[in-house]
Amino acid sequence: MKTFGIGLWLAWTAVASGQSNPAALAARHWREAHERAILAEFVELLAMPNLARDEAGIRRNAAAVSALLERRGVKTRLLEVPGAPPVVFGEIQTPGAKRTLIFYAHYDGQPLDPKEWATPPWQPAIRNRPLDRNGDLVLLPASGRIDPEWRIYARSASDDKAPVIAIAAALDALKGSRTALDSNIKFVFEGEEEAGSPHLASILQKYKDLLASDVWLICDGPVHQSRRQQIVFGARGIVELDITVYGPRHELHSGHYGNWAPNPAMMLARLLASMKDDDGRVTIEHFYEGIEPLSETEKRAVAEAPDVDRDLMGEFWLGRTEGGGKKLVELLNLPSLNVRGMNSARTGGQASNVVPATATATIDVRLVKGISPETAAARVIGHIRGQGYFIVEGDPDRETRMAHPRVARVTVDPGGYNASRTSMDLPISQLVLRTADSARGPVVRLPTMGGSVPLFMIEQILHAPTITVPIANHDNSQHSFNENIRIQNLWDGIELMAALLAM
Amino acid sequence: MKTFGIGLWLAWTAVASGQSNPAALAARHWREAHERAILAEFVELLAMPNLARDEAGIRRNAAAVSALLERRGVKTRLLEVPGAPPVVFGEIQTPGAKRTLIFYAHYDGQPLDPKEWATPPWQPAIRNRPLDRNGDLVLLPASGRIDPEWRIYARSASDDKAPVIAIAAALDALKGSRTALDSNIKFVFEGEEEAGSPHLASILQKYKDLLASDVWLICDGPVHQSRRQQIVFGARGIVELDITVYGPRHELHSGHYGNWAPNPAMMLARLLASMKDDDGRVTIEHFYEGIEPLSETEKRAVAEAPDVDRDLMGEFWLGRTEGGGKKLVELLNLPSLNVRGMNSARTGGQASNVVPATATATIDVRLVKGISPETAAARVIGHIRGQGYFIVEGDPDRETRMAHPRVARVTVDPGGYNASRTSMDLPISQLVLRTADSARGPVVRLPTMGGSVPLFMIEQILHAPTITVPIANHDNSQHSFNENIRIQNLWDGIELMAALLAM
Repeated sequence: MKTFGIGLWLAWTAVASGQSNPAALAARHWREAHERAILAEFVELLAMPNLARDEAGIRRNAAAVSALLERRGVKTRLLEVPGAPPVVFGEIQTPGAKRTLIFYAHYDGQPLDPKEWATPPWQPAIRNRPLDRNGDLVLLPASGRIDPEWRIYARSASDDKAPVIAIAAALDALKGSRTALDSNIKFVFEGEEEAGSPHLASILQKYKDLLASDVWLICDGPVHQSRRQQIVFGARGIVELDITVYGPRHELHSGHYGNWAPNPAMMLARLLASMKDDDGRVTIEHFYEGIEPLSETEKRAVAEAPDVDRDLMGEFWLGRTEGGGKKLVELLNLPSLNVRGMNSARTGGQASNVVPATATATIDVRLVKGISPETAAARVIGHIRGQGYFIVEGDPDRETRMAHPRVARVTVDPGGYNASRTSMDLPISQLVLRTADSARGPVVRLPTMGGSVPLFMIEQILHAPTITVPIANHDNSQHSFNENIRIQNLWDGIELMAALLAM
Repeated sequence: MKTFGIGLWLAWTAVASGQSNPAALAARHWREAHERAILAEFVELLAMPNLARDEAGIRRNAAAVSALLERRGVKTRLLEVPGAPPVVFGEIQTPGAKRTLIFYAHYDGQPLDPKEWATPPWQPAIRNRPLDRNGDLVLLPASGRIDPEWRIYARSASDDKAPVIAIAAALDALKGSRTALDSNIKFVFEGEEEAGSPHLASILQKYKDLLASDVWLICDGPVHQSRRQQIVFGARGIVELDITVYGPRHELHSGHYGNWAPNPAMMLARLLASMKDDDGRVTIEHFYEGIEPLSETEKRAVAEAPDVDRDLMGEFWLGRTEGGGKKLVELLNLPSLNVRGMNSARTGGQASNVVPATATATIDVRLVKGISPETAAARVIGHIRGQGYFIVEGDPDRETRMAHPRVARVTVDPGGYNASRTSMDLPISQLVLRTADSARGPVVRLPTMGGSVPLFMIEQILHAPTITVPIANHDNSQHSFNENIRIQNLWDGIELMAALLAM
């Protein structure tokens, strides 16, 4: 095959694997010719500290992202509400456009502790292998191929500056190949997603007309664990609760008072244990009631999703999984109840011979369509009450504690929200799937991701469907230290974005 | 009644309440005339930092305690084994003695964090009320009565320097009143009790002959919560276990993997919940098997003990107690299982959206006669195994974790020991009870305390019975910060010690 040029050979293998999308192929050629320039622009963007709460820093990022779009001839403006990082808005108007697409990404990054990072989070570093496989720091060679298995380590390398750069490179490629667009394109790059998008609703309300579209393409999150492209049509909702149960007013000597004074650690253990059976099924009454069922298309998509459970068990050192034999991809379509953490007095070398005074657990309930945060929280609280607890919202006083055999303080986080799920049968859904298939080979289609993103807000305020088109590798340490992106994922992302922009 | 002198009046009220012991009455008169001198000597001793691990400090205490005995004409020597604080040994030989009594106390104190103390732990301070009732610092009046409800705050004020000073004052009183002794008296004042008495067995072995006696009187611990004198004939044994259960290798995103990857916090909750029923009865198989039953005398003593449960519930803000309606004093005669603390990931504001990687609990099992630490630990471990866990002693590797659906690491603290219980029917037991009754009014008799003290060691090595004769108030913050003694308890203790020395 050496007689073919490398470009032709890649085109051939792409066609062989079903990747026939002309915009994607154009993007590949462009990228091959401009890898260093693309990475240079990326690294420059990653070098800017981007915490939503750092106003000066986040505005520097907004300016850089605007400039990046402006360099591609995209008209931009900042969408502002008081006290919030701006949304960078950009627009490409296409005469005779068949539709309007919004590409959503966010330029802020997760809060972090620099001490946990192997290299400083805003000093992008390249490694020849992942850190947990002893990857070494490497320098880009002056010329020749860049190993696509190398990774770039920096905050937001995956989440979520990679899509911004992928879009920028895709725009260059489309321009360079004179590919005509069929759609109006709008860009919405948010600056406080990792802070929980507290002002997104206001911004959507304020700029409702400007943000009209046929679909929001959410450029965020990872591809499938099998490394295949995935297209995701929803996200679970969420509600979080803190539960504290009470023993004696202060810690008591466990010899003098143990097994007479109720032990809150044991009370909490019993309470939590009452919420699930041994197989992980939630035993709270009505917990699974009201779930909006999957359509036939969605069921087929779930059934066809690659089975990665065995590999993941190896990756995570698991000797079993929960869910009564159901695959992970199936379980994501059910609500879940998870203990994020629990705590009572001290353990191990720090333990002392006491009956603890309190015990606390934080749990999250992931929601699917048909169950609201209010409903789910009420079910959990009803269950706690059913276990004999008197429920309070603040710290219970002496009188309250003495009047009830069991007292639990339950705090429901007000930031809960609904799940969202766009039908795979919508024409726009089918178009996105066809486009992605042609650009990236047969893609994994998922009705929902397991995590929670407030996509419902977009549906509710703008009445537009959302479809998530992720590009990052799944093993990207997103939200943790040593976040990274595998370079091949960025390259693939450029092709996907080019295809979607041109659809 | 003003026509009586105060001394006579006190003697009269003492007789009226059944307190007729001549040595105790002599001690009262002596104390009334020497309150300031007694407290001065006490405060001087309390001002000496006394942690077992502080070699220089602990030897200064040993020297001070020796000097205190020598000033009373008691011949002393230091009993030493390498690497240990010395035991201060003292002896009074009584011609024609009917018996030999050993008075045990310890001069070291619990480790502490000075930051938690209201006043520095080794700068004794007097307050007019307990700190938790807003007690103010006061100075001793130059003359006149000292309010016996005042409290002295300092490390070891109760635990366990008060008995040392009470014995010293009692010796003065007996000498002052020319009271003849009937017994040989030996003193064993230990210097590392709060470090777990790691060298006591070696010292007992090495000085076996020197330490021959008819009984060990353990001058340690608190009187009954009703403030009545109590005499205690045993202590529970103990064994401690750390239990860690394992979820994924590292924390996982709770949205992407929750309710598929097993959650170790929930696993631990289920495991702990399986160990006890809702009423606090331990459900581990055979847990209560082999208990050496109480004698008729012991049963009667338990039945006659004052019922303080209702008061304690008020003190501790409890709306219920465990134990199926049994009183605290009854429950102390059963083995117990207590969760000292448990921990998994983080809660509340520190919580993050994860499936935790591990969960740990530390539990203690209090033992009664008939159940050894080895037996109890084996029962707990057998129960964990019965819940489907593969038990390991070290951190399990990938292979182990993948080979078993549930893995628990169980560490049994090697410092466990047996319970001990001296029969109340022994002649020496009856003598101690008669003496205490005559000195302090009808005393509360308990077969065992709830806490654990390695008294079995004395029985095993020296074949001598032990009887605990405490003097401190129960609300003395022993083992915690702001340890204190109520001055009346010290005064009462002097009378009890005088009576016991003279018996």
